[in-house]
Amino acid sequence: MDTPSPASDDDAGDGSSASQGLSRRGLLGLALGGGVVGLALGGGAGVAGGVALGRAQAADDAAKVYEFFGEHQAGITTPVQEHLHFASFDMMPRTDREDLISLLQDWSYAASRITQGLEVSATGAVGGDADEPPDDTGEAQGLPASGLTITFGLGPSLFEDDEEGDRYGIAALRPEILQRLPAFLGDDLDPAQSHGDLCIQACADDPQVAVHAVRNLSRIAFGRAKLRWSQLGFGKTSRTTTAQATPRNLFGFKDGTANILADDEDALAAQVWVGGSDEPAWMAGGSYLVARKIAMLIETWDRVRLSEQETIIGREKGSGAPLSGGDEFTEPVFTGSDIDANSHVRLAHPEQNDGIRILRRGFNYVDGNNELGRLAAGLFFLSYQRDPAQFITLQRQLSTDLMSEYITHVGSGIWAIPPGAAPGSYVGAGLFA
Amino acid sequence: MDTPSPASDDDAGDGSSASQGLSRRGLLGLALGGGVVGLALGGGAGVAGGVALGRAQAADDAAKVYEFFGEHQAGITTPVQEHLHFASFDMMPRTDREDLISLLQDWSYAASRITQGLEVSATGAVGGDADEPPDDTGEAQGLPASGLTITFGLGPSLFEDDEEGDRYGIAALRPEILQRLPAFLGDDLDPAQSHGDLCIQACADDPQVAVHAVRNLSRIAFGRAKLRWSQLGFGKTSRTTTAQATPRNLFGFKDGTANILADDEDALAAQVWVGGSDEPAWMAGGSYLVARKIAMLIETWDRVRLSEQETIIGREKGSGAPLSGGDEFTEPVFTGSDIDANSHVRLAHPEQNDGIRILRRGFNYVDGNNELGRLAAGLFFLSYQRDPAQFITLQRQLSTDLMSEYITHVGSGIWAIPPGAAPGSYVGAGLFA
Repeated sequence: MDTPSPASDDDAGDGSSASQGLSRRGLLGLALGGGVVGLALGGGAGVAGGVALGRAQAADDAAKVYEFFGEHQAGITTPVQEHLHFASFDMMPRTDREDLISLLQDWSYAASRITQGLEVSATGAVGGDADEPPDDTGEAQGLPASGLTITFGLGPSLFEDDEEGDRYGIAALRPEILQRLPAFLGDDLDPAQSHGDLCIQACADDPQVAVHAVRNLSRIAFGRAKLRWSQLGFGKTSRTTTAQATPRNLFGFKDGTANILADDEDALAAQVWVGGSDEPAWMAGGSYLVARKIAMLIETWDRVRLSEQETIIGREKGSGAPLSGGDEFTEPVFTGSDIDANSHVRLAHPEQNDGIRILRRGFNYVDGNNELGRLAAGLFFLSYQRDPAQFITLQRQLSTDLMSEYITHVGSGIWAIPPGAAPGSYVGAGLFA
Repeated sequence: MDTPSPASDDDAGDGSSASQGLSRRGLLGLALGGGVVGLALGGGAGVAGGVALGRAQAADDAAKVYEFFGEHQAGITTPVQEHLHFASFDMMPRTDREDLISLLQDWSYAASRITQGLEVSATGAVGGDADEPPDDTGEAQGLPASGLTITFGLGPSLFEDDEEGDRYGIAALRPEILQRLPAFLGDDLDPAQSHGDLCIQACADDPQVAVHAVRNLSRIAFGRAKLRWSQLGFGKTSRTTTAQATPRNLFGFKDGTANILADDEDALAAQVWVGGSDEPAWMAGGSYLVARKIAMLIETWDRVRLSEQETIIGREKGSGAPLSGGDEFTEPVFTGSDIDANSHVRLAHPEQNDGIRILRRGFNYVDGNNELGRLAAGLFFLSYQRDPAQFITLQRQLSTDLMSEYITHVGSGIWAIPPGAAPGSYVGAGLFA
């Protein structure tokens, strides 16, 4: 098979147009270079409620459509979808600045289409020349947008590689706080499930739509970046709106009761979004993403008596109420209560951490089982914060967490999440202004 | 942690009651031994439409409830759900006939509850003694039944083990046609993803519900059987009712257009259900399940030009119509048409195979990616047939399939699927009558 991929016949190099990389044929359908995208954008579009485009917003999840362009990238405060396909990429050797620019442009172009329920280009899966491979791999034909969001991130190694240094001329623009995370107690990290120059978080209510996104974005990256590792997840373990019920993690407990919600604008400004006075300026409106693959020893956990499980978490298993009383949403009381000093709920609570909070967006995962017949399962933890120090502080605080006996951190990564792109532009454009 | 699992304190040994294995506490909630299960059962209950129990059958998938008991096991002609967790088990060394009986009883008891949206026992996740581990692992608390079906199967090695022989006194009852599948061209089978004494097919519209089922059934098996391998799948690749749209596989083509549907009673009787005059008698109303994990070389496929992809499949990629013309549901014409003699649609067609058909129930899978950055993805093929020879004939016919270049069979298994259990009984009871 020597048929070229659609990406390999690009004029990568001038970076003059976001629509240029993937396919000139794409121009026929949606001219991004000129900003001719018929989308009504509010200031917070794509943030909390989603904007329905070109079809009625049905009650059905499948009909949900979220805007790709906007002040912030979608997929952060967007109501958490049911499925995740997360992918980490490394740039290919001997790629240059223009390769990186064209990749980010092509990715934004494709993401702006597939998040609207379209194919990756105007010719799509079957509309092009029958003597060429289709632009779109086709497995999402006929499926609605399904609430798809695509969130792009830039890893520390993109700015400065251990071997190749400042490959892309962006080292001076690196946020000082974007550093590989320090080692934590309980880490047993697999490099093959950690780190990466770039990341894509694809969330959707249909896993086929999320998988289609990562597959096609990976294909578009051909010759420029290569999939390093990827992870499927399901059954969101945190909520981001009050309308969502608090889901349960694989320990059987409600998780994310105290998460930062999309309508808590003060908390978002203070804890999640990089501010206008923060450095570097190109990150304003962005955030920092930490991913941790946390293996749960679920067979061991399942043999722990109920009272001990509840002591470890600090909450009732059924109701989710703190052991100090009340219901799920009652604030826990730590002084003189039944909540253990080393319970998860206490150690992670803002009251114990100078008011630090993070926006959690994790998913459960099951990767089959090991040779002992134990499920290879756990939590794929994702958190967004204004400064990675928030995560680091919380994670260090959890070093005495009673839960530590039942989990192992096996994967880790950190990425700068640029602000959202304006129509006609692309995510990361601020780096190359 | 030396807390015993709920299964380890059973009186395994007399097999007198289906409710005995898991937990005496379970008796408080649902007395199976006496058949006191308040379910209205029609003759074909659980087969085609599902029976709503205890709640209104909403349009929402989440509200779907399928009967566990019935003439046939559920999960075969049941409208294919969105998610799969398939699990293969091996019996533990030095287990005896009573261990096997009690395991099948306990599994049926738990399955009869969780398929109705209940917890695995009456005490469930939080209702028991706080000084013991809960019976139910709890992550499905608050979730509806989500169309869950549990289908149990018995592998050739259960009847007669290579080393231990007739461990359970059932070798004489083994169906002669239940044999490990022969080697096929293109096989590259991984023993760690193949075979097994027992299998569980858990299908649901919520992956958390399917995972909860396998996790808890695996836990119930503690000391008697051990998870050998397991597979998650999504995005059903076949339909089993006319109401379902034909889904697409990861090659981007509609798949299962010509599948046997749940309302085609003649085809089900002729091709899927073991008949009353077939041997052995205990299998009447049952079926045989073949599972094949088929890795797809999707990056290679994605570089094949559209016209060649359509030649390989024998259908149009967009519409699903055969290349001989018409629409998706037009019968293909092979003589003098544009359909290649070695196209997939022709080789697999009943016309080329003495009228042989199978009921397909496969799912897409993605297991991350390999070190080359290629997605480890494909089709987890499941088919039900009255006789394994049906699958063998079709698979041999496919040896010249043009598609072979783009797939590798990496896992394989075959299981006898006993008929459904009557209320108060359990799946497999016919073996021990």
